Amino acid sequence: MSSAVPEPVTKLIEAFSALPGIGPKTASRLTYFLLRAPASISQNLSDALDDLKSKTVLCSTCFNITVDDPCPICRDERRDKRLIAVVEEPLDVLAIERTASYTGRYHVLHGVISPVNGVGPDDLKIRELAQRLDNDVLEIIIATNPGLEGDATAMFIQRDLAGKGVKMTRLARGIPMGGDLEYVDAVTLMRALQGRSEMG
Amino acid sequence: MSSAVPEPVTKLIEAFSALPGIGPKTASRLTYFLLRAPASISQNLSDALDDLKSKTVLCSTCFNITVDDPCPICRDERRDKRLIAVVEEPLDVLAIERTASYTGRYHVLHGVISPVNGVGPDDLKIRELAQRLDNDVLEIIIATNPGLEGDATAMFIQRDLAGKGVKMTRLARGIPMGGDLEYVDAVTLMRALQGRSEMG
Repeated sequence: MSSAVPEPVTKLIEAFSALPGIGPKTASRLTYFLLRAPASISQNLSDALDDLKSKTVLCSTCFNITVDDPCPICRDERRDKRLIAVVEEPLDVLAIERTASYTGRYHVLHGVISPVNGVGPDDLKIRELAQRLDNDVLEIIIATNPGLEGDATAMFIQRDLAGKGVKMTRLARGIPMGGDLEYVDAVTLMRALQGRSEMG
Repeated sequence: MSSAVPEPVTKLIEAFSALPGIGPKTASRLTYFLLRAPASISQNLSDALDDLKSKTVLCSTCFNITVDDPCPICRDERRDKRLIAVVEEPLDVLAIERTASYTGRYHVLHGVISPVNGVGPDDLKIRELAQRLDNDVLEIIIATNPGLEGDATAMFIQRDLAGKGVKMTRLARGIPMGGDLEYVDAVTLMRALQGRSEMG
């Protein structure tokens, strides 16, 4: 950039650009917004960034992000110990919690098996999942995302835990609410047919 | 948000959401990205945020953002003192510098006159522009954005400085490079007709 841009500005633009989905244009828009905005906005952001890693840990049981270990869900005696939903990311825990219809516990893998990206089973919390299985656990809901990597990861876990006497299920595939048969892809429609349920 | 989200995560999501164009979804995506990313990425961002305001000032001459006052452009004796481009924001200076075809100096208003948003002439660096006019300055290029507020601001400045013996110009309106007559709005096309120039 030209000499018209002072270094602190360039540095912040570069730091924003390092975030996913933020290109140089958005980064400079954000930077110049902060230059004009009240100092409290950049101060809040800076403080929150500092606290993010220093004040959080992974729950030693489910590996969700938490301030206190074990996390509130693992501590909550009302949560069903017989049910573990295995998800890819902490955000997926949130998504399931939002349904307000799941009373079990979680296990966060922190990724999916992805040979292309050099991520193998040992890079995920799969071994830790096996170690959690005790007589309490009756069912593992493998809630990885549908798609190549999520499916491969689900299959790996299924084989890994086979013979441990625990039921393993996957989330239903089908047409999403508000979806339109005409626009739904063939694989989804096929799954919806296979998974059809009796009415009434 | 539910108890599944620890407070430091919520706080960062909120801090990101305070930025323009970043909704709650993007904010949580960024936050969970930073949780997994190397600590240096959030550290860099946090440091850059801290430096942004503490290490920059407004140039006391042109009011562009700068580390040293006066700014590099105002200090540069090769820049034509007879020409001042009046722009709304520091980003506009950048845009003009990128053309590599302007050798004059700048004046940053830091906004436009906007009664709706409660911004009057006194909230901008308009008085400071008048104070800069000396015998050196021959022409002021009012480079505010085309549109209601930019045009009103240009008109205000033109009246304010009338009779000071300085030539005032505006940037040409017309069809942008790669633009298509069919899709250009009527006002732009009208301006392009009015501003037509002789060929060869």
